[in-house]
Amino acid sequence: MTDNPSRGFPEREFAARTERAQERMASSGLDGLLLMTEAEVRYFSGFHTLFWQSPTRPWFVFVPLTGKPIAIIPEIGAELMRRTWLDDIRTWSAPCPADDGLSLLTDLLKPLAKASKTIGVMKGHETSLRMPLGDYERLIECLPGLSIADATGLVRGLRMIKSELEIEKIAHICAIGSRTFSRVPDLVFEGQPLEDVFRAFRREGLAQGADDVPYLVGGADLGGYHDVISPPSRRPLATGDILMLDSGAVWDGYYCDFDRNYAIGAADDASRRAYDVLWRATEAGLAAARVGTTCRELFQVMQSVIEELDNQGGDVGRLGHGLGMQLTEWPSHAAFDHTVIEENMVLTLEPSLSYGNGRIMVHEENIVVRQGGAELLSERTSRDLPVI
Amino acid sequence: MTDNPSRGFPEREFAARTERAQERMASSGLDGLLLMTEAEVRYFSGFHTLFWQSPTRPWFVFVPLTGKPIAIIPEIGAELMRRTWLDDIRTWSAPCPADDGLSLLTDLLKPLAKASKTIGVMKGHETSLRMPLGDYERLIECLPGLSIADATGLVRGLRMIKSELEIEKIAHICAIGSRTFSRVPDLVFEGQPLEDVFRAFRREGLAQGADDVPYLVGGADLGGYHDVISPPSRRPLATGDILMLDSGAVWDGYYCDFDRNYAIGAADDASRRAYDVLWRATEAGLAAARVGTTCRELFQVMQSVIEELDNQGGDVGRLGHGLGMQLTEWPSHAAFDHTVIEENMVLTLEPSLSYGNGRIMVHEENIVVRQGGAELLSERTSRDLPVI
Repeated sequence: MTDNPSRGFPEREFAARTERAQERMASSGLDGLLLMTEAEVRYFSGFHTLFWQSPTRPWFVFVPLTGKPIAIIPEIGAELMRRTWLDDIRTWSAPCPADDGLSLLTDLLKPLAKASKTIGVMKGHETSLRMPLGDYERLIECLPGLSIADATGLVRGLRMIKSELEIEKIAHICAIGSRTFSRVPDLVFEGQPLEDVFRAFRREGLAQGADDVPYLVGGADLGGYHDVISPPSRRPLATGDILMLDSGAVWDGYYCDFDRNYAIGAADDASRRAYDVLWRATEAGLAAARVGTTCRELFQVMQSVIEELDNQGGDVGRLGHGLGMQLTEWPSHAAFDHTVIEENMVLTLEPSLSYGNGRIMVHEENIVVRQGGAELLSERTSRDLPVI
Repeated sequence: MTDNPSRGFPEREFAARTERAQERMASSGLDGLLLMTEAEVRYFSGFHTLFWQSPTRPWFVFVPLTGKPIAIIPEIGAELMRRTWLDDIRTWSAPCPADDGLSLLTDLLKPLAKASKTIGVMKGHETSLRMPLGDYERLIECLPGLSIADATGLVRGLRMIKSELEIEKIAHICAIGSRTFSRVPDLVFEGQPLEDVFRAFRREGLAQGADDVPYLVGGADLGGYHDVISPPSRRPLATGDILMLDSGAVWDGYYCDFDRNYAIGAADDASRRAYDVLWRATEAGLAAARVGTTCRELFQVMQSVIEELDNQGGDVGRLGHGLGMQLTEWPSHAAFDHTVIEENMVLTLEPSLSYGNGRIMVHEENIVVRQGGAELLSERTSRDLPVI
């Protein structure tokens, strides 16, 4: 086991993120960014807590055109926020349904509204409004003169390119994930209920050094699984099953996200064929994932291999995505996504296909794109469908 | 270890939930409910997946005034949704930023808009908009004539009262949580980094039968911890530390949420005093948590004991909350919450106080309110601060 990287980031990381945001704000006419989602609040402040799992309290970070971000948060988070690089931390005693941060937000934004300025809020693809919609509507009503623009593209442009320290964290959790998967043949046995397979995998991921294994989906069925998002059943593994485990483990707030396929006892020909096609689709993706390629082109390269077996286009909707502070991030390897791949993007390659009678198979690897091309962060899955 | 309850729910459970919703919709003039958050989609459909952890795709369930709910979801979820009690499942190949379900939603809602009907969307306290705000704004614009009302109160009124099958699941995970905490004295030792304490606790929770331990926060410091939402540090446990672990473990999509405090090696007087006050505050809460009491009264009963030591009102903002499909649910035991406690509410009692030099202590138990009063679901913490 290698040494762990350091937790957290030095202040210069947050200063650089903020500076880059402010450059883009200036050039797009934004006088502030109002952020309220876990990843964005953490990205600009370093505020890292599982407390977001409680839906009760909203949390806000405002990035002004100059200077450090400002936190507007429930008092319960003040102690933790004071340990970040932020200086201006405004709190209220939450929950307070009558005024859950709205007065503080109004005070902050009123000068901008009076001056008819524009702020950015994330309103686009893969975002949500992490405050009550009714409160958002009241806030906007209180601030006539303030224009709201969609800042999704701006934030996406920053977050898609990872720093070396971010890549180090993702590489670390990918290595933990690879070690965990390498133990699967010892953890899994015929007759074991899938539910227990999942539990054993999670325990192993923790033992290998993950902070948590929040995401674990998969399937197992005779001759192939039928969907890839179900919770596990009590059905025992049986000879001839194809088992897939897809895991998002996390370390210091950064994810790995890759899967592995196994045959239990024996592999049928159709599944071995599907595995071979997807292995080669991934190889094609690895070769194509270079600086300057578009995500659309990367999709097409993988899709052209997949079409040897399946020309339906699939149910999954894309063949991979960005990875980092969230299990899935922009961009998408899909026909609609013309994003140009840049150095230090961290991506998944996730070719999938349908085969046989309603079977599905998915492969997934994690990579970082460097000047020389794609570098694997996950340990490449074996060339042939492994039999346990 | 007792037998596990069954996973999932029989169809009659979903039919009853839907019928109760429809009665309330009729009496409040709503012709439909548009729901898009994990708990609400699951509550009405039974659709249960960790795939929500990916922010990429929106998911919708529409509850009409009569008949079964209608699902409007990404194709990747169709197979799983077809195993629920729903019949009308409309899908699109997501992600599709240009039209992520909007056409399907527009088709569904256009007849209601033409007839100038009103539908409910959750816009209130403890909710968020789990679709892009920009898409929501476009949807509303496409449907002139349609009125949107806040359905938070309606849904809260249903979800706050648990069915016997729901209570059985929560009792099961609370028992798992209690067994996990009972093992802490064997898992934890002086010199152990807090990070490793957390990892050991999570592994034990899984071994005891939890599906996962997604929420685990806490703290440890000499003479008392300073906040209750931080991730764990590498600091080793030392004699005189007060250690707190607060865990939300999950089984079949239902949570426990309670904590335990321990002294490492020896307990200081101030912490023992704080523990005693909070233990008695919880006792007062257990006696007061009866059908007909308001959450405000329950708050005041606990607060009057806490004031023996701390009359500041605290940073936590409330002294407990609802519990079930989410780690925290309505109501709140707080001065602002006049909710009347009803039979089969599942609640946490969570008194907290500040003491010494910026120390905080929190106790937490889980209860179900029956006709005869509060019944503990968590095993009551020991009378005196346990020393490990």
